[in-house]
Amino acid sequence: MSSASPAFAGIVPPVATPLLPDHTVDHASLTRLVEYLVDAGVAGLFALGSTGETAYFTDDQRVAILETIATANAGRVPIIAGAIELTAPRIIETARRLVDAGADAIVTTAPLYTLNSQAEIADHFRTIAAAIDAPLWAYDVPVRVHKKLGLELLIQLGTEGVIAGVKDSSGDDVGFRRLIAANEAAGRPLQLLTGHEMVVDAMLLAGADGVVPGAANVEAEGYVRLFDAARRGDWDTARSEQERINRMFDIVFQPTGLSGDATGVGAFKAAMKARGLIEHATMAHTVTPLDADAVDKVSGVLAGVELLPAATR
Amino acid sequence: MSSASPAFAGIVPPVATPLLPDHTVDHASLTRLVEYLVDAGVAGLFALGSTGETAYFTDDQRVAILETIATANAGRVPIIAGAIELTAPRIIETARRLVDAGADAIVTTAPLYTLNSQAEIADHFRTIAAAIDAPLWAYDVPVRVHKKLGLELLIQLGTEGVIAGVKDSSGDDVGFRRLIAANEAAGRPLQLLTGHEMVVDAMLLAGADGVVPGAANVEAEGYVRLFDAARRGDWDTARSEQERINRMFDIVFQPTGLSGDATGVGAFKAAMKARGLIEHATMAHTVTPLDADAVDKVSGVLAGVELLPAATR
Amino acid sequence: MSSASPAFAGIVPPVATPLLPDHTVDHASLTRLVEYLVDAGVAGLFALGSTGETAYFTDDQRVAILETIATANAGRVPIIAGAIELTAPRIIETARRLVDAGADAIVTTAPLYTLNSQAEIADHFRTIAAAIDAPLWAYDVPVRVHKKLGLELLIQLGTEGVIAGVKDSSGDDVGFRRLIAANEAAGRPLQLLTGHEMVVDAMLLAGADGVVPGAANVEAEGYVRLFDAARRGDWDTARSEQERINRMFDIVFQPTGLSGDATGVGAFKAAMKARGLIEHATMAHTVTPLDADAVDKVSGVLAGVELLPAATR
Amino acid sequence: MSSASPAFAGIVPPVATPLLPDHTVDHASLTRLVEYLVDAGVAGLFALGSTGETAYFTDDQRVAILETIATANAGRVPIIAGAIELTAPRIIETARRLVDAGADAIVTTAPLYTLNSQAEIADHFRTIAAAIDAPLWAYDVPVRVHKKLGLELLIQLGTEGVIAGVKDSSGDDVGFRRLIAANEAAGRPLQLLTGHEMVVDAMLLAGADGVVPGAANVEAEGYVRLFDAARRGDWDTARSEQERINRMFDIVFQPTGLSGDATGVGAFKAAMKARGLIEHATMAHTVTPLDADAVDKVSGVLAGVELLPAATR
Repeated sequence: MSSASPAFAGIVPPVATPLLPDHTVDHASLTRLVEYLVDAGVAGLFALGSTGETAYFTDDQRVAILETIATANAGRVPIIAGAIELTAPRIIETARRLVDAGADAIVTTAPLYTLNSQAEIADHFRTIAAAIDAPLWAYDVPVRVHKKLGLELLIQLGTEGVIAGVKDSSGDDVGFRRLIAANEAAGRPLQLLTGHEMVVDAMLLAGADGVVPGAANVEAEGYVRLFDAARRGDWDTARSEQERINRMFDIVFQPTGLSGDATGVGAFKAAMKARGLIEHATMAHTVTPLDADAVDKVSGVLAGVELLPAATR
Repeated sequence: MSSASPAFAGIVPPVATPLLPDHTVDHASLTRLVEYLVDAGVAGLFALGSTGETAYFTDDQRVAILETIATANAGRVPIIAGAIELTAPRIIETARRLVDAGADAIVTTAPLYTLNSQAEIADHFRTIAAAIDAPLWAYDVPVRVHKKLGLELLIQLGTEGVIAGVKDSSGDDVGFRRLIAANEAAGRPLQLLTGHEMVVDAMLLAGADGVVPGAANVEAEGYVRLFDAARRGDWDTARSEQERINRMFDIVFQPTGLSGDATGVGAFKAAMKARGLIEHATMAHTVTPLDADAVDKVSGVLAGVELLPAATR
Repeated sequence: MSSASPAFAGIVPPVATPLLPDHTVDHASLTRLVEYLVDAGVAGLFALGSTGETAYFTDDQRVAILETIATANAGRVPIIAGAIELTAPRIIETARRLVDAGADAIVTTAPLYTLNSQAEIADHFRTIAAAIDAPLWAYDVPVRVHKKLGLELLIQLGTEGVIAGVKDSSGDDVGFRRLIAANEAAGRPLQLLTGHEMVVDAMLLAGADGVVPGAANVEAEGYVRLFDAARRGDWDTARSEQERINRMFDIVFQPTGLSGDATGVGAFKAAMKARGLIEHATMAHTVTPLDADAVDKVSGVLAGVELLPAATR
Repeated sequence: MSSASPAFAGIVPPVATPLLPDHTVDHASLTRLVEYLVDAGVAGLFALGSTGETAYFTDDQRVAILETIATANAGRVPIIAGAIELTAPRIIETARRLVDAGADAIVTTAPLYTLNSQAEIADHFRTIAAAIDAPLWAYDVPVRVHKKLGLELLIQLGTEGVIAGVKDSSGDDVGFRRLIAANEAAGRPLQLLTGHEMVVDAMLLAGADGVVPGAANVEAEGYVRLFDAARRGDWDTARSEQERINRMFDIVFQPTGLSGDATGVGAFKAAMKARGLIEHATMAHTVTPLDADAVDKVSGVLAGVELLPAATR
């Protein structure tokens, strides 16, 4: 059942999962990371998302990760946790464990592996919402799920009270703008978060409620400043901050020849390590690590935007 | 570790999962179905594949399904079971339970949801093979996984002894032909099964070792005759049998406006029920059932190829 | 050769091509449309683009269309004309005729039908630029060309002086933002126009130089006001205007079950006819016309945003 | 209008277009190539297809190429010519010139660049067929056209007499098998040619009327032997011949890092030059040439299957 969802209005970083060199979870670094993010002024934490490499972990590991995040957060901001699994019965099993471990809300995608219609996807969300004791959010990420959640589907599920919000990583700015307008027309049943971290100023101008920027793991303060500027209507400051952030975001274009997962999360973790936020840049098992050259380039980008501590510069 | 794989040379049907009207497993019908398939002369059973709707079941349900199949089979033919999950650590958990429940081999796909390179996918299979006590097969089904398993990757994994075979549902006949030739050149480390059930004669001429035809759940004897004809070089008989089967296969083109999963498995189950092989045509939860008109059309196709029992015709 | 390009900073509508019921060009309506657009304050005219249905016309027809546009425009604003053809030698033939007929600049895409690398696409643009006597622009429209023009490719061609600008209809807001930043870093060799007509406020905030909105054929004044507000930094007004425009833009979501070309241009033409801007809503030959119900719904949307003349409301 | 089409039953090679180093057509080599193909026993010539690099030529060049082919052929086998252009009015212009230049039939695709429904594509073919004085064929090549010609569409157009046949390069063996069956059921209105040159034996077993193998430009005799064996029901010989051909076909997997067009046609032309069939391996302008290493590897493959003349081995 979907009860009133906590507000996720503002910066809601998808928390990365620091690992030890043997690929087990580095709970000490994770605790430090959560402290950093909450102190920086984020409005919530998005646990166990794609940036958190959640797909690579067993449910036992996921629970342990979430427990560490919840303990470090100590109730200061709401936590939404990804329950990423194939279909409703399997998602429900995972989601229930995450709710027990401290999630204030659950987010999931359309079914994976299966070939479903929008009507079947609607029933998928309805089935999950009815079986868990936390608000449910829909995660629209076609690059991973290979299906787009339709506008009508989302508004319908919002109006029914099945979902409390949408995390949009669809890469479709026009679709997101239409979703904002349709949500407005329907009385705002949905909270709308964007994952387009390089165009946050533009998406906030368009009407997004909040942002889920992976790069906030590297530097969260800038996104918080950007959001605050936008909220007070100071769009020139918002744009300037975005442009500064985007120069930092160049870190993800430094690795070459690697997979999508190795490149994006790899660059984030290399930068987080360079900034002293985590101990190791290790990625989940079977993801290829960045080579030394890419790591150097990442540090070079950080130095260029003055984000390296004196000692390492 | 991958020990010597049982031979899956011949017809290896992907066993459908009969369900009761409440969407729980109909073990009685499943037992009857396995009896039918083994009596018809199949060379093995492919449990918990896409036709078996495996993605829609929890691991507990999967284990129960496999136990019923194994019990009904009573060791007469080898069983290969799908361990369909997101990534290696999760697949290993599922696969171990399936091996304990009676699987003689495990088949799985590239990771789901993640964005990986071919090198990372290779390590994915290596990690799984090293952790399970049964031969591992690779399942190439881009329509669901959204990645193609490359020729070099498969031959490399075969040569290393990581995988014992490939189930090809890629829809790429040229790629499969190249795989057959490369496997031959490498000393045949792999058994090669095709899922292209409408061109089995052609794929056997090309050199496939066996076939995984969903439609064998509706009628298995025809595929067995086709395979036997091909093995003795009687290609005219093989083609005639294929053409007859394809007229029966028209059942899957009768439903309109439904999802891929509703259409394919839905038509199979409607036909199986019409032929008296299972009790109910119920599909996994959230999959839309066929309407009465589609069910009638399916029966009409079956009647047209004389596959309905006297009573129902 | 690419000489200094005229500025296309502002609203540059892709001029629709009014047709008579026999599918020949309605030059009288086209003249009237150009008058309307130029009087509304547009900064340029984009002739023979996708909205202009250019792919459906022979080169003789294209020349006649451009001549009418040029005559009606009478040099008031610069005209950029699409030379849409398969490959460089064929594009050059078309482009030369269009330059002779009055185009101030030429815009074209990557090759069609062929399978080319980014290096080959670069040579494609170089070959065309060297052979025509007008500035060349690159048109990035993957939904039609099925190739994305890469960031490095565009900046390289801009720096070489091969292309003067880019018309971006890629649907990739992040890619466009990165292009803006890279262009800035390179000394602004390129003018950057967006075709994302529902997020013009956001794209202008991000740094676009101008806009190519198909819906300006229906109402151009709103886009001009939006652009002016953005230029003076009044983002609240820009957003309000965009939101009003988007309610009007709902016309393109009224037709159902038709092709992309029938739906988009069909809705524009139905609305243009309803507003009295053109005589007939006829589309290019073999494109299915809107039915009466869709035409009514389009009028209803226009009435809802007070864009129908008193007589027709 | 579509009159009775000449039979294209057998091997119908897509004739490559030899070029001089300045990228103009090498008519002497083209004449020699046609002589070679016809002497080898082909059943027809497919001029100006993808292997013929037709997209890279102006209509004047296309006419000149076809004239040379027609002259060299001297009426010995029928010639079908590709009229590859954006839409019906433009295709008709090209097609009429090709019919005048000696084409016995015309083949074209669905519209390019546009976004059409199957109904609009049907009208596209009807419009062209009504306007030209030669039988029309449909060319299904989604990798270039990005649309699949539907089964119902093709049978409908065949039954109406709009198209005389289909050249299938769709990569969809199941779809082709269904097309064969539906054509049979409809009274065989269509001739069906496959472009899947690595599985010709299988496609002939399935019921294809003929084959359009690009590799026949390198060696045509093998395909003729394969076809003859299949026609007399000697499938073991057909398969052996196919397997030999496929070892030769490895030439197209030797170049690395190049575009699709550079790789495929580049390998064919390098092999044709190595075998002395043409003078230069030059490809159409802006296509990147093979480097010396790739050319050597192509020769190595040819030597391995004993297809190099004594002098060059």
